[in-house]
Amino acid sequence: MGSGEAMATVSSSLKKLLLTEVEPPSPTSGSKITIVGVGQVGMACAYAILTQHVATEIALVDMNANKLKGEMMDLQHGLTFLRNVRVNASTEYSVTAGSRICIITAGARQQEGESRLNLVQRNVNVFKTIIPQLVKYSPNTVLLIVTNPVDVLTYVAWKVSGLPKNRVIGSGTNLDSSRFRFLMSEKLSVAPSSCHGWIIGEHGDSSVAVWSGVNVAGVKLSELNPLIGTAEDPEDWEALHQEVIQSAYNIIKYKGYTSWAIGTSVAILCQAILRNQHNCYAVSTLVKDHHGITEEVFLSLPCILGENGINFIVHQTLNEHELKKLHKSAKTLQGIQSELQL
Amino acid sequence: MGSGEAMATVSSSLKKLLLTEVEPPSPTSGSKITIVGVGQVGMACAYAILTQHVATEIALVDMNANKLKGEMMDLQHGLTFLRNVRVNASTEYSVTAGSRICIITAGARQQEGESRLNLVQRNVNVFKTIIPQLVKYSPNTVLLIVTNPVDVLTYVAWKVSGLPKNRVIGSGTNLDSSRFRFLMSEKLSVAPSSCHGWIIGEHGDSSVAVWSGVNVAGVKLSELNPLIGTAEDPEDWEALHQEVIQSAYNIIKYKGYTSWAIGTSVAILCQAILRNQHNCYAVSTLVKDHHGITEEVFLSLPCILGENGINFIVHQTLNEHELKKLHKSAKTLQGIQSELQL
Amino acid sequence: MGSGEAMATVSSSLKKLLLTEVEPPSPTSGSKITIVGVGQVGMACAYAILTQHVATEIALVDMNANKLKGEMMDLQHGLTFLRNVRVNASTEYSVTAGSRICIITAGARQQEGESRLNLVQRNVNVFKTIIPQLVKYSPNTVLLIVTNPVDVLTYVAWKVSGLPKNRVIGSGTNLDSSRFRFLMSEKLSVAPSSCHGWIIGEHGDSSVAVWSGVNVAGVKLSELNPLIGTAEDPEDWEALHQEVIQSAYNIIKYKGYTSWAIGTSVAILCQAILRNQHNCYAVSTLVKDHHGITEEVFLSLPCILGENGINFIVHQTLNEHELKKLHKSAKTLQGIQSELQL
Amino acid sequence: MGSGEAMATVSSSLKKLLLTEVEPPSPTSGSKITIVGVGQVGMACAYAILTQHVATEIALVDMNANKLKGEMMDLQHGLTFLRNVRVNASTEYSVTAGSRICIITAGARQQEGESRLNLVQRNVNVFKTIIPQLVKYSPNTVLLIVTNPVDVLTYVAWKVSGLPKNRVIGSGTNLDSSRFRFLMSEKLSVAPSSCHGWIIGEHGDSSVAVWSGVNVAGVKLSELNPLIGTAEDPEDWEALHQEVIQSAYNIIKYKGYTSWAIGTSVAILCQAILRNQHNCYAVSTLVKDHHGITEEVFLSLPCILGENGINFIVHQTLNEHELKKLHKSAKTLQGIQSELQL
Repeated sequence: MGSGEAMATVSSSLKKLLLTEVEPPSPTSGSKITIVGVGQVGMACAYAILTQHVATEIALVDMNANKLKGEMMDLQHGLTFLRNVRVNASTEYSVTAGSRICIITAGARQQEGESRLNLVQRNVNVFKTIIPQLVKYSPNTVLLIVTNPVDVLTYVAWKVSGLPKNRVIGSGTNLDSSRFRFLMSEKLSVAPSSCHGWIIGEHGDSSVAVWSGVNVAGVKLSELNPLIGTAEDPEDWEALHQEVIQSAYNIIKYKGYTSWAIGTSVAILCQAILRNQHNCYAVSTLVKDHHGITEEVFLSLPCILGENGINFIVHQTLNEHELKKLHKSAKTLQGIQSELQL
Repeated sequence: MGSGEAMATVSSSLKKLLLTEVEPPSPTSGSKITIVGVGQVGMACAYAILTQHVATEIALVDMNANKLKGEMMDLQHGLTFLRNVRVNASTEYSVTAGSRICIITAGARQQEGESRLNLVQRNVNVFKTIIPQLVKYSPNTVLLIVTNPVDVLTYVAWKVSGLPKNRVIGSGTNLDSSRFRFLMSEKLSVAPSSCHGWIIGEHGDSSVAVWSGVNVAGVKLSELNPLIGTAEDPEDWEALHQEVIQSAYNIIKYKGYTSWAIGTSVAILCQAILRNQHNCYAVSTLVKDHHGITEEVFLSLPCILGENGINFIVHQTLNEHELKKLHKSAKTLQGIQSELQL
Repeated sequence: MGSGEAMATVSSSLKKLLLTEVEPPSPTSGSKITIVGVGQVGMACAYAILTQHVATEIALVDMNANKLKGEMMDLQHGLTFLRNVRVNASTEYSVTAGSRICIITAGARQQEGESRLNLVQRNVNVFKTIIPQLVKYSPNTVLLIVTNPVDVLTYVAWKVSGLPKNRVIGSGTNLDSSRFRFLMSEKLSVAPSSCHGWIIGEHGDSSVAVWSGVNVAGVKLSELNPLIGTAEDPEDWEALHQEVIQSAYNIIKYKGYTSWAIGTSVAILCQAILRNQHNCYAVSTLVKDHHGITEEVFLSLPCILGENGINFIVHQTLNEHELKKLHKSAKTLQGIQSELQL
Repeated sequence: MGSGEAMATVSSSLKKLLLTEVEPPSPTSGSKITIVGVGQVGMACAYAILTQHVATEIALVDMNANKLKGEMMDLQHGLTFLRNVRVNASTEYSVTAGSRICIITAGARQQEGESRLNLVQRNVNVFKTIIPQLVKYSPNTVLLIVTNPVDVLTYVAWKVSGLPKNRVIGSGTNLDSSRFRFLMSEKLSVAPSSCHGWIIGEHGDSSVAVWSGVNVAGVKLSELNPLIGTAEDPEDWEALHQEVIQSAYNIIKYKGYTSWAIGTSVAILCQAILRNQHNCYAVSTLVKDHHGITEEVFLSLPCILGENGINFIVHQTLNEHELKKLHKSAKTLQGIQSELQL
């Protein structure tokens, strides 16, 4: 199923009259991305990548053959108006061969009465079937994990894949940071891309807002308002961080799921990797030996991303309160990880 | 609800220390698009417009305040990584003021046992509440109708709005043409944007494939295969047209609805209009006095699109069979229209 | 001379057979930019704006009719592969009507033995003929001055135009800041767009590097290296600033003029304005009453740019040394300005 | 000289405090383009590629070390505002290693009183030093020849390189076709990208306009005006073709050289190749055995371009007059080639 296949096998007399072959078209192209899971998140990622021409080829994988076929066709039918990205899809992993990035959005959903740990274990099992297949067909790929809980599952992906740590990345708090910058932008009437601020640590409730680094044009907001981020702040800037934390809950309450912002966030990470840009984004990475963390866990820190994944981790100066939150997250994650059957 | 509002009213001491106002920010910007209806189609349009920076501002309108808020937030949270398009949303039409294009994707869905005519009448009623509001707040807007049945509803929008015919456009067979070109591309191993072919007429089952114009690099396929498009064609190219017709049915069967391709198709039309491009796309327009059609109906023909909507209709040379199909569609549409209460 | 004119007047029988007019094409479009001066700088600006689709229409003005015609044709001949931006040119200012931004790159060059003041006065005289014409045809335009010495000439443009201060901008140290960030990027192996640093003040030899704000991911380099920017710094980061100052001299020595970087820099400023982005860039603005400056002069500070030009000036915390340099520049500029005949 | 080098060798204590290396940055990236020759044409190509993010890395090569350094710095200083394309330059070919496309714009200029043949031979000698170096460092590259006379020199590049014919391409009449489509666009008030027409054959005076394929929306202009392209045509459409032929002469007369349109044209060809797009463009290719040509010469025909260069040649239906002109060009070219010392 897919365009590549069709292009290889079709042979018609009209085609022979029209076209003289000089050299067979290359069956695959240099900037291929695989997306596993065609739910709302996977498809928002695919559409953001497609419309922004981030990749030159997209492969979709899912167990639900019908849904998969429908999504592939729906993407393909708009290709006329794009720069001819190729879109293929299959329930078989061979379709992913030669991917430079594999994005995993697949995963089980929490069932009523199910414990969080049980959910994680079920997703571990899913990853144990997906990841070896991806690595088999794209041994040099970068894995980009989006499925939640993203920090644990990025650790799982790292363990299961056997890939070096630079090539296993969780989408992490890049989204939280984007949400923070948007809210900051509303408060200041300054474009979000000119509002600088970093949310790090665990993606979700226990994320850490690094107030010391929040700035516009290099002007630290904490210099103008030394109480920023604290309970005593008369302007209550910490409310922005709390709103970031509530964002996913609110959006799920309002529309049932989140999709567009995570799609945009993932597309920008893919672009940084495929273009070897060396830009800085907060993504989930192995944080052992950073900020005094001793556990082998994945948390988000600002990282420099390039063709081979994570090139550098940026060392931010954190205060005691921030360090404490990071260490607590690390312990929690290790606790969960120790009970998993990998 | 929305960023614009917040930006105007927030006033904080930190902000005053950081920023000296020279001139208040312009509350709205020059390339604003409204999208009415935040279902799968409306949101795919919004996301395609956003990620491709087609507009500088997007306003969403829907009756479902919660869904609307969730979709707005989800779009806003990715703005950090885009070129700062502004996104607002409201159940009130004042949010749409100053739009250069208003896209209508809202509409009732067919209910079990409901006649098609009854469905159309229900959508007429919806349009009668939506359109006067849009025109009130954006008297110079171009209306772009996406809701199905698109040809009848574009006629309805024209009648209800009182706008000149050049400013009321149906998304029509631009999508069918894109599907056709993609399928042609698969058959020939040539990029869809270098495969040229036009599907015109009624969007849907009775659309017309203009085989005489199908070409690559100006080489008519009908010169290489004079039987193309006929039942006698040994290569059965007409199967491509049939597959175009079946596309929507198949995708709905597989994934429940169509969204991505219509989003891409609508975004390209908006770009042609906002950039005053004068590109040619097949869209639904008032076809009276074209190709011998005497009815006051809307059908898709290749049109040149610019800032004020449709500037020219391209006169294709149609054969008898193609003309007959067009005329039949025109009659059917007029039949439906004559029973509507506008 | 130009496409618009031709499009309006041509009338051929073939055209009438092919196209039925529904509504005449809009003669001009919403995002028009005028560039005065088609030397290396003006043309690099035009090409950067064109290839990045920043505007929907470009008008070129120059006194040299032949050079102008050649440049216009050379731009037009590539439009097939772009998003149909329109390009016109004329020695008459009527071609600029309705521009949202007017970029001035025109100006006299220093002659052998000519004093700097004499050069400035000659450019004042040039501006006195150009600017009233631009304002006449585009009363709501933003003026973007690129000609050097940019700070004095932006002041001149403000005085001569009678426009409010928010709508008269000098390209200023946006270029110096970009150069600094590139050099910083080389030193750190981090993308220039993730290296943050601001060069402010006078564009040229006496510019000010604001070391306190230089950061990556909100981590101030001055925290890691408190001697940064001083003569005592063992790593000599100030050398980067000195290299920025030498850049123009070096490039002129090597290739005869600078063009590409100023073109890219001007294009990004135009994008921020036309898209109403509210991004922050260092541009030359009226700095009276900022940082204790009492003179009515233009110098570069970080500004928030939107549709109506400069919306806010960002107040950076400067140290005594930096303030002193700014004040000295202000005095020098006022000295020059006081001798000009406006 | 260049950023890559600097990035590898710099090592500073501040950097070590700021960044923890996870994996060294990849020294080179997947979509690298080399440009040989930094004259007006080479630099317009570089700037078009850079501003449109066609490549992820650009290497410039020229014999003039100073000019080269100036151009490199001038490009680099704008990178902050682009998607972090890397720019390097050297007089040594090692800087080109791993390029997917090598563009050759270098070449001798005609001297007063010099015969055309003598000029060609001098350029052959230049190519004999350049091309083996390029192939040595990028054995899988596609060669894209821009230097004039482009058809002969593409043949020379093919012979000297020893590369398969699909990987040696001349920019050819892609530019002539773009000029034609722009002029057609002015005549019809339709965007050039919706005006379809092909100029093939020799780039320059003896190019062939394929009138039978000229169309808008699949409507052949020759159906509306059977005399089109002939001396009897009352609307004299052939004048457009003549204007195309005169374009280069006129622009050189007006501004001294052509640059922007060839830059845009080359950038679009590079994009088609790097993105494996399979779009159709008229480029110079080995035409032996096409249209009855028996000579081993390069002329432009519509070609499908992909990752490995030319995948297919499109067979247009040419009339006797057009065939005659092609055959004559082929003979002329072979005549020149037979006198060259390769």
